[in-house]
Amino acid sequence: MSIKQPFVPGLDRVIAAETAISFLDTEREKIIIRGHDLIDLSVSNDYLDIVHLLLDGTLPNASEKSALEDTLKKHYDIPSYVMEILSLLPETTHPMDGLRTGLSALSSVDKEIENRSTEANKARAYKLLGKLPAITVNSYRLINGLKTVQPVPTLSYSANFLYMITGKEPKPFEAKIFDRSLLLYSEHEMPNSTFTARVIASTHSDLYGALTGGVASLKGNLHGGANEAVMYMLQSVDSAAEFQQLIQKKLVNKEKVMGFGHRVYMKKMDPRALEMKESLKQLCEKKGDYSLLDRCEAGEKTMLEEKGLYPNLDYYAAPVYWMLGIPIELYTPIFFTARTAGLAAHVMEQHQNNRIFRPRVSYIGESY
Amino acid sequence: MSIKQPFVPGLDRVIAAETAISFLDTEREKIIIRGHDLIDLSVSNDYLDIVHLLLDGTLPNASEKSALEDTLKKHYDIPSYVMEILSLLPETTHPMDGLRTGLSALSSVDKEIENRSTEANKARAYKLLGKLPAITVNSYRLINGLKTVQPVPTLSYSANFLYMITGKEPKPFEAKIFDRSLLLYSEHEMPNSTFTARVIASTHSDLYGALTGGVASLKGNLHGGANEAVMYMLQSVDSAAEFQQLIQKKLVNKEKVMGFGHRVYMKKMDPRALEMKESLKQLCEKKGDYSLLDRCEAGEKTMLEEKGLYPNLDYYAAPVYWMLGIPIELYTPIFFTARTAGLAAHVMEQHQNNRIFRPRVSYIGESY
Ligand SMILES: CC(C)(COP(=O)(O)OP(=O)(O)OC[C@H]1O[C@@H](n2cnc3c(N)ncnc32)[C@H](O)[C@@H]1OP(=O)(O)O)[C@@H](O)C(=O)NCCC(=O)NCCS
Ligand SMILES: CC(C)(COP(=O)(O)OP(=O)(O)OC[C@H]1O[C@@H](n2cnc3c(N)ncnc32)[C@H](O)[C@@H]1OP(=O)(O)O)[C@@H](O)C(=O)NCCC(=O)NCCS
Repeated sequence: MSIKQPFVPGLDRVIAAETAISFLDTEREKIIIRGHDLIDLSVSNDYLDIVHLLLDGTLPNASEKSALEDTLKKHYDIPSYVMEILSLLPETTHPMDGLRTGLSALSSVDKEIENRSTEANKARAYKLLGKLPAITVNSYRLINGLKTVQPVPTLSYSANFLYMITGKEPKPFEAKIFDRSLLLYSEHEMPNSTFTARVIASTHSDLYGALTGGVASLKGNLHGGANEAVMYMLQSVDSAAEFQQLIQKKLVNKEKVMGFGHRVYMKKMDPRALEMKESLKQLCEKKGDYSLLDRCEAGEKTMLEEKGLYPNLDYYAAPVYWMLGIPIELYTPIFFTARTAGLAAHVMEQHQNNRIFRPRVSYIGESY
Repeated sequence: MSIKQPFVPGLDRVIAAETAISFLDTEREKIIIRGHDLIDLSVSNDYLDIVHLLLDGTLPNASEKSALEDTLKKHYDIPSYVMEILSLLPETTHPMDGLRTGLSALSSVDKEIENRSTEANKARAYKLLGKLPAITVNSYRLINGLKTVQPVPTLSYSANFLYMITGKEPKPFEAKIFDRSLLLYSEHEMPNSTFTARVIASTHSDLYGALTGGVASLKGNLHGGANEAVMYMLQSVDSAAEFQQLIQKKLVNKEKVMGFGHRVYMKKMDPRALEMKESLKQLCEKKGDYSLLDRCEAGEKTMLEEKGLYPNLDYYAAPVYWMLGIPIELYTPIFFTARTAGLAAHVMEQHQNNRIFRPRVSYIGESY
């Protein structure tokens, strides 16, 4: 006999945690990060400000900011055994799987791995944020038989990340747009990967394990994997009209169109998607090529008319990353790297006030 | 403003899935696996029967059983790049982390990785069940600078696993007790690791990712890690009386005593723990050494008197594994390997009828 309680598929609207980190206030249409509106923050702050806000609890002053940047840079180096492991991965490896393996392997040399205190978790998070750009980029490069690249500490954190990805020092406006994408991806309340990380951490498991699970979660195309899926669609057509036809065909076949819909934003567009669309416009203007914007707007129109669905952040992140010259297979790994700040904040919070996640089921199997 | 719904820490009693796989019927005191009572099954069936029940839906007849055993054995070999990766892990690596990295790396050579059909997932699960004993044992051995061991296909699946662990061909009664431990560990409704695997799979992520998250979850000492923690406690004392003092001290310090308590079994002892205690008795009798049983029973008495708490499966698995000559660091990896059958069944079920897990939060942070 089963337990008398309603089953809500996907835990839709179920409260799974108390958190001081972030909240999607759909009534006031705000993404709140520790009391601040993320979109407001994106105007005059950059990714590292949000990292400090997430992990230390406050926006940094100038000296805190430069101390943070120094800390991350101090951790840029990757242990040689991790690079060797990455170099052994076959060329058929999915970059998210390469990242997952590399991140998993990093735990071996954490001498304090048993320490779950907030201070230890925070230090660990900064260490990982320092190392992740190089792991992300070099796992992709090694899988594809390319030479590894080294971080350049004279560039800013984000500019260096983009430099390692493209091999070219980014222009200031490119670095700015990329940094803003990291900021917008940094934290978003309780999406699947954040939930995964908290569920894992609740057994007293460690940050490496929680993040490894987070990579696995984010890989799925209903979650982070959507940004890559969007770009493959955009790339497969030659015009806005063709893109609309592609979408129509998917809808006729009852397929989901990646980059649309959101569990929480149902009636409005994700405010982050609006910001990212602005970045796309800027890039199109600079390059004098509006073809991706045209396709995206056409797709947006079709989906709104046909399904009443709005684009999400991944929909506009994809063409932005394309125009920044980023290989498609890196879109989801970049999303993960940016989100690591939020995930680590949630793991810290879970360890501070923990009860193991252990729900029940409704049994619909053979009787007995 | 936050959402008006009660927050239940740890999703205690919240229904997170509809499942035909298993159910803890606390009223009738049964662990149901696809309509069968697990404890009844443990009398006349072995681990591979349960694997077939979990993944194919039925108890196997003789020819299905031998076909299953052949399939697993066909998959015993480990790709050489995975062994090389394991050999690169530093000696400070936790064996669960080694297992996590090795399992994560295995995804690279799955040519059908994008295929989420039940048939593909099932074939993948059998492949992994074939490979996991060797990955589990050899990751531990390589981390500890020991020579790798090869599976012996002339032994049964469980006997070979125990042989690889100890380096000695097990006596039939040892192989039987070990096999029963795998059976008891195989599946148990919705513990944290199963929940983790389903949450990850719900993004359309793949079995490797879901299982990698499962290893990370199981590592925590509130979950699978408890079996190792119990053995370190048992080992740290010289008598039953000392063990009771150790427990008393922990309780005075408000520490949790590993191996006791369970979210679902509150008023009774976990039926699997009772079975495992029987195995411990058999081993003590055979070896003419009752010291571990004495300590365990003394601890059981103290915890019942002081806290009204019963031992769980991990409490009795620990001394059983010790008496089988199994290194402590392998207890949790063995638990994971056995549980892979259940985890894979849940991932298959999640992919069959999916909605992404995406709960909400109650915001308790700075006002805005
Ligand atoms: C984000 C998402 C997973 C939210 O899932 P959810 O809250 O469980 O919503 P559901 O999948 O139940 O969708 C509700 C309805 O809208 C439809 N729908 C939702 N997203 C859709 C999409 N992208 N394309 C077509 N239809 C969609 C569903 O088919 C469903 O219709 P139905 O009630 O007729 O069956 C979902 O919108 C989706 O799969 N989007 C595409 C993947 C994506 O872009 N992910 C990135 C998210 S940031
Ligand atoms: C299994 C377990 C995680 C279940 O957790 P849960 O359902 O969230 O239960 P709680 O941790 O809220 O425990 C309820 C009460 O019992 C106490 N308790 C539970 N297990 C205890 C233990 N092993 N030792 C001491 N006290 C324990 C708690 O302190 C709590 O007391 P309180 O209400 O005075 O604070 C928990 O019993 C535990 O941590 N056990 C030890 C680890 C273990 O053996 N895990 C393997 C499980 S198979």
